[in-house]
Amino acid sequence: MISLSEHPWMGGLFGDAECTTLFSADAELKRFLQIEAAWTRALGTVEGVEDAEAVAKGIEEAVIETQVLRGGTERDGLPIPALVKALKGQLGNDALIHRGLTSQDVMDTSLMMVLGQVAELLIGRLKALDQQLAALQDRFGAARLMAYTRMQPALETTAQELIGRWRQPLPRLLSDLAHCQTDLRQIQWGGPIGVRDHTNADKLGVCFAHNLNMHDPGQAWHTDRTIVLSVGGILSRITIAMGKIGKDIALMAALGPEQITLVGGGSSAMTHKNNPIKAEALISLADLASSLQSGLTRSARHEGFRSGQAWALEWLILPEFCVTSATSLLLAGKLINDLETFGAVPRHF
Amino acid sequence: MISLSEHPWMGGLFGDAECTTLFSADAELKRFLQIEAAWTRALGTVEGVEDAEAVAKGIEEAVIETQVLRGGTERDGLPIPALVKALKGQLGNDALIHRGLTSQDVMDTSLMMVLGQVAELLIGRLKALDQQLAALQDRFGAARLMAYTRMQPALETTAQELIGRWRQPLPRLLSDLAHCQTDLRQIQWGGPIGVRDHTNADKLGVCFAHNLNMHDPGQAWHTDRTIVLSVGGILSRITIAMGKIGKDIALMAALGPEQITLVGGGSSAMTHKNNPIKAEALISLADLASSLQSGLTRSARHEGFRSGQAWALEWLILPEFCVTSATSLLLAGKLINDLETFGAVPRHF
Amino acid sequence: MISLSEHPWMGGLFGDAECTTLFSADAELKRFLQIEAAWTRALGTVEGVEDAEAVAKGIEEAVIETQVLRGGTERDGLPIPALVKALKGQLGNDALIHRGLTSQDVMDTSLMMVLGQVAELLIGRLKALDQQLAALQDRFGAARLMAYTRMQPALETTAQELIGRWRQPLPRLLSDLAHCQTDLRQIQWGGPIGVRDHTNADKLGVCFAHNLNMHDPGQAWHTDRTIVLSVGGILSRITIAMGKIGKDIALMAALGPEQITLVGGGSSAMTHKNNPIKAEALISLADLASSLQSGLTRSARHEGFRSGQAWALEWLILPEFCVTSATSLLLAGKLINDLETFGAVPRHF
Amino acid sequence: MISLSEHPWMGGLFGDAECTTLFSADAELKRFLQIEAAWTRALGTVEGVEDAEAVAKGIEEAVIETQVLRGGTERDGLPIPALVKALKGQLGNDALIHRGLTSQDVMDTSLMMVLGQVAELLIGRLKALDQQLAALQDRFGAARLMAYTRMQPALETTAQELIGRWRQPLPRLLSDLAHCQTDLRQIQWGGPIGVRDHTNADKLGVCFAHNLNMHDPGQAWHTDRTIVLSVGGILSRITIAMGKIGKDIALMAALGPEQITLVGGGSSAMTHKNNPIKAEALISLADLASSLQSGLTRSARHEGFRSGQAWALEWLILPEFCVTSATSLLLAGKLINDLETFGAVPRHF
Repeated sequence: MISLSEHPWMGGLFGDAECTTLFSADAELKRFLQIEAAWTRALGTVEGVEDAEAVAKGIEEAVIETQVLRGGTERDGLPIPALVKALKGQLGNDALIHRGLTSQDVMDTSLMMVLGQVAELLIGRLKALDQQLAALQDRFGAARLMAYTRMQPALETTAQELIGRWRQPLPRLLSDLAHCQTDLRQIQWGGPIGVRDHTNADKLGVCFAHNLNMHDPGQAWHTDRTIVLSVGGILSRITIAMGKIGKDIALMAALGPEQITLVGGGSSAMTHKNNPIKAEALISLADLASSLQSGLTRSARHEGFRSGQAWALEWLILPEFCVTSATSLLLAGKLINDLETFGAVPRHF
Repeated sequence: MISLSEHPWMGGLFGDAECTTLFSADAELKRFLQIEAAWTRALGTVEGVEDAEAVAKGIEEAVIETQVLRGGTERDGLPIPALVKALKGQLGNDALIHRGLTSQDVMDTSLMMVLGQVAELLIGRLKALDQQLAALQDRFGAARLMAYTRMQPALETTAQELIGRWRQPLPRLLSDLAHCQTDLRQIQWGGPIGVRDHTNADKLGVCFAHNLNMHDPGQAWHTDRTIVLSVGGILSRITIAMGKIGKDIALMAALGPEQITLVGGGSSAMTHKNNPIKAEALISLADLASSLQSGLTRSARHEGFRSGQAWALEWLILPEFCVTSATSLLLAGKLINDLETFGAVPRHF
Repeated sequence: MISLSEHPWMGGLFGDAECTTLFSADAELKRFLQIEAAWTRALGTVEGVEDAEAVAKGIEEAVIETQVLRGGTERDGLPIPALVKALKGQLGNDALIHRGLTSQDVMDTSLMMVLGQVAELLIGRLKALDQQLAALQDRFGAARLMAYTRMQPALETTAQELIGRWRQPLPRLLSDLAHCQTDLRQIQWGGPIGVRDHTNADKLGVCFAHNLNMHDPGQAWHTDRTIVLSVGGILSRITIAMGKIGKDIALMAALGPEQITLVGGGSSAMTHKNNPIKAEALISLADLASSLQSGLTRSARHEGFRSGQAWALEWLILPEFCVTSATSLLLAGKLINDLETFGAVPRHF
Repeated sequence: MISLSEHPWMGGLFGDAECTTLFSADAELKRFLQIEAAWTRALGTVEGVEDAEAVAKGIEEAVIETQVLRGGTERDGLPIPALVKALKGQLGNDALIHRGLTSQDVMDTSLMMVLGQVAELLIGRLKALDQQLAALQDRFGAARLMAYTRMQPALETTAQELIGRWRQPLPRLLSDLAHCQTDLRQIQWGGPIGVRDHTNADKLGVCFAHNLNMHDPGQAWHTDRTIVLSVGGILSRITIAMGKIGKDIALMAALGPEQITLVGGGSSAMTHKNNPIKAEALISLADLASSLQSGLTRSARHEGFRSGQAWALEWLILPEFCVTSATSLLLAGKLINDLETFGAVPRHF
C-alpha cells in the first residue's frame, strides 16, 4: 500500500478509517450518481419534462461496474464520460442525462460534498480535543513546570499555561471551518467551457443546487480554486497545531519525568524504552502537511477555461492532505490520553 | 545581490521598490523605536511615572548605529538586546525602558505593522488591477476568441469571458485582505515566556496597543502563528491569480495573433521575436510562491513557549513572500498595458 | 482510496501495478523475514551455533497475522517488535532471533532491497523509453516543425532535434541509477544506538550482508540518509524529464496539427475534443514530485542517534515518490504510442 | 533588505560575505564580459579573423552602465541584449560580437562559472569543518554521554560516537562536490534554439570552452538542467547535515550541562539565559533548504527549446540556495567553537 493510512499494519498508527471512508470509491460513485440525478431533476423542472423524476431515480439506483469507469478513466482521463455513457445505455434517455453538464461540474460538486463531510469531521474532532485539553488543564493545570524558550529553561510556570498554548489556535480554526462549511455547500456548474450556456441558466443553477441541498454561487469556478486553497490552509493549520503538541510532548519526554510521563512505545532492542511514538508521528504529519501545501498551492493555477494538469495535481494531493490533517487530530487525542504525569518540580534551578 | 528584487539590473523586471522599502532596515528600526516608545509611555501611564513621556521621546529620536545592532545580532541572534542596551546607555532610565517586554514582543509587533502596510499596498494594487481588467473588458470584451480547455480548442467565446475568469478571485481577495488588516492591527505582548506577568497586565496591554493605534488581543500569540499563515495564504492566492493571467497570456501569445498581441521582449539572437517576458515572470513568481508556502507553513510550528528555529525560518521567508506577491501585481498591471490586440477570429474551425 | 495509483478507476490512468506491488504488505513482510533469517544465520556462523539454520528456515516460513503487526504498530510505532515477539513465540529460540538487531536495521535494510527493485524497474523503463524515442526519431525525425523558445515561434527545425532534447537527460539518469544500485546493495546494521556493540561486529556485518547478497558499509547509517536523498534526486529528475515530454506534447497539441496529432482523451460535453490526458498527467506528476522532494529533503535531518519523526516522514513520502516517478515513465511510453503525426509529415505516408 | 544575508544587522548572524560576493552584480558583469570575449576570440580563431583579439580585449575592458542593463532587463527580461548592444556601440564590430551566441548561452556559462566557485568554497569549508570535528573528537571523544534515540535516553555512549555521526555524510559530500566541479567546468553553447547552427560548430565549441578554461559538452543543455539539480541536491545535503549538528546541539543544550555547554546567545528579558542561537539558525536554514528544493526541482522542467518561466524560477532560487548552504557551513564552524563542555567531561580539565 502506498498510503500508510491504508497500509495493513502501518495503518495501526497512521490509519483513520472514518476519514478515508469518505474518500472511498463507493462513496465517490454514490456522490456522482446523486449529482447526475439532481441535474436530471433540475432539467425536468426548468424545462417541464415529466419523465425527469423517473430517470433521476434510475440514475440513483444504477449499478455501474468499476471496470467500466476504470477503462473510461484510462481513455478519457476521468470517469465521467464512461459513467454518462453507461447511464444512457441503461436508461435510454439521452436528453435528460448530463446534457449541459461537464465532467468537472460533477467532480467539483462531488469534491465540495466530500470536503463538507471532512469539515464536519474536523469540527467534531477539534471540539472533542479542546474538551480533552480543558480536562487536562483541570487535572494537571496547577502542576509547576519549566517554560522553555528557544530550547532553554526560561522561567517556571504552570501546566495550565502550556496547555493554554495548545488550545490557543482552536477557536479560530473552528470559526474558520464553520465559515468554510457554508462556502463548501456550493455547486459547480458551468458546462463545457464554464459559461452556463442555457436559456434558463439562473433557474437551472438554483434548482440543481436546491436538489443537492447546496447553494448556487451564480457562476462556475472551474479555474478559481479559492475554496480549495482555503480548505488547504485550514488543513495545514490543524496539522501544525497538532504538530506543536507532538513536538512539545516529545521534547518534554526527552527532558524527563519532571516534565511529563507517557505510556506506550516499545523498542525491539531496548525494553526499558518508552518511545513517544504518537508525539513523533504528529511532527511527521505536520512536516508532511508543509510539503503537501506546496503542491496544493501549485495546483491552484489553472490555465485557460479548464486545466487538466493543475486539476489532476489537486486530485493527487487533496485526499492525502485531508487524511493527514484528520489523522493528526485523531492521534493528538490518543496522545493526550497517554499522558500519565504532567509537570512537577522543574529540572533546572 | 541574492534577491532579484534588489539586484541592480534584474530589479528592472523583478524589482518592486514600493514594497521592498517597507522592509528596509531604516523602516524596521523606526518601527522598533516606535514600539519601545509606546511601551515606555504605557508603563508611565499605568504605573503613574511622569518621566515616561520624556524617555519615550528620547527613544523615538535615538540614533542607533547599525554596527551596534549587527554585533548584537551576531551575539544574541536578534537585534533587540543590543538596541535596548544602547537606549539605556543613551537615556539612562533602565526602569522605563523595555521592562516587561521581550525581543519577540517588539519584533512581532513590528511584523504586524509592516504586514499591515503590505496589506494596504496589496489592496490598492488589487483594486487598480480590477479596474484595469474592467477597462480591458470594455475595450476588447466583444472580441471572439477560442476557449481552450485542457490545452485544446473547445468552443468559441468572448474576451469578456476570459477576462472575467481573471477577475473572479479578486473580490474575495479584497474582502479577505480587509479582514486581515483588522487582525494585523494587533500588538504582541507577553514578556519573557509570554504569560504577561504584571499586576496591571490588562491595562498595560490596552495602553501599549492604544499608543500604537492597534488593539490588544488580550494574550500573547508567540507560538500561535495563525495570522502569519492567513497572510501567507492570501499572498499565495494573489500570486496564483496573477500567475494564471501570465500563463493564459503566454499560451495565447504562443497560439498567435488571433488570440493576442503583445509589445516588448527582445531577443539577443532573433530580432523577429517578441518574448512575453512579463507573462513568463508571473508564472515564475507563482511557482516561487508555491515553494515559499511550504517553508512558511513549516515555520508556523513553534515548540515550547518560544521557538528560535521556527521563528527565524519565518524571518527568512516572509519578506521575500510579500515582495513576490506584491511584484506579481505590479507586473500583471504592466503586462495588461502591453496588450495590443486581444481576441479576433478563432484559429481553429 | 487515498492514492490514485491504487484507486479502483483513477488507477486506470495513474496506476502502476508493477511498482505498487513492490511496496505491497506481502512483499514487505517477506523482506522482513528474509532479513531476520539472514541475521539468525549470521549469528549462527559467527558464534558457531548449529541450531541457527533451522531457526532461520523457521523464520522464513513463519506465518504472521497482519492483525498482530497492526496491533504492534499501534503500540510501538512500527511492526518489528511485534514481529520479533511472534517469531520467538513460534520458534522458541530467543537467543538466535533479532539479538543485536534493532527495528531500524530491519526496516532500512528492507528499504534498500525494495529501492534496489525500484531502481531495476526504472532502468528497464528508461532503456525502453529511450528506444521508443529513437524509433520515433527514425520515423518522424526528418519532419519540419517550428522550434518554440520562451513560448514563441523561433526558427524552423526538425522533429529529430526536439526528440533529441527529450532523450538528452536519459544517459546520465541510467548511469546514476546504475551507480545507485550498487549503493543500494548495502545492509543497515548498528543495533540499539547504531554503534555495533558486538565482539565480532565486523564478521557479523559481513556475514549478514553476504546472506542477503548485499555488502556491508562497515557502519550503521541510521542518521545519514545520503542514499535516500540520492534516490530522491533521481526520482525527481526522471519525473521532470517525463514532465517535459508531457508539457511539450500538450503545448504542441494546443498549437495544432502542424505540430502534433494524438489519439484518445474524450470529453463528456464536447465530442469533437481530443484531450492530451497523458501529457497533462505527466505535468501533474512532475509537479507532484517537486512537492514530494521538499518533504523528502526535510525527512533527511535525523536528530540524535535515531529519529522517529524524520524517519516516519520518509515512510510517508518515499513509496509515493517512487510510484510517481515509475508511473511517469509508464505514461510517457504510452503517450508516445498515441502520437499519430509529428511535425509537418504525417505518420503514415 | 529582503535577504537576511545582506541585511545590515541580521547579516550579523545570517551573513556570508564570501559567498554573496560571488553573486554580486560586479562579479556577474565581469563573467559576462569574459564570456563574450572568449566567444569573440573563438570566432576569430575558427574563422581566421585577425581583429578578434583586439575586439575581445575591448570587451574585457568595456565599462557598462548599470542603468543600461537595468533598462534592458525591464524591456527584454534579461540583460544580455542590452549588453550586446552597448558593446557593439562602443566597439563598432558587429560581426565579431555575440554572433551565434544567445543570451542563455552567456548566462548559463556564467552560472557554471559561479557554481564552480561556490563548489570550491563549499569544499574548503567542508574540509575545515571535518578537521574541526576531528579536533573535537580528540578533545572530548572519551567523554560519556547519553545516546538519545527517538527523543528518549537509550544507552550511554561517547562523544566520539556522536561527533562521528556528524562527520559521516562529509566524505561523500566532498567526493560528490569534486565530481560536480568537473561537470561545472562546461560551457553552454547552442545559439538561438540550441542546435549549434554553424559550419565549424565543433571547433567553435571547443575553442570557446578552451578560452574559458572549461570543456565543451558537445551540445547545448538549455532544457536539460541535470547539473543544476545535482548541485541543488548537494546544497540540500550540506544544509541538512549542518541542520543535524544544530538540532543535536540545541537538544543537548536543552537537556542540560551533562550533555553540552555553550557560550553566547543573550536574551533581552532574561539575563540568565544562554540561547543556542547558531544551533537554532542551522535548523532554520535546513528547513529553508527543504523549501527551496521544491522550487528548484520545479524550475528544472523547461518547455520547448527554451523556457523563460522555468529559467527565471531558477534565477529566483539558486543564489539564495547556494548562500543558505554556504552559510550553514560557516555557522556550524562557529557553533563548534562555542562549545565549552561536551559530555560529562569539561573542556578544560
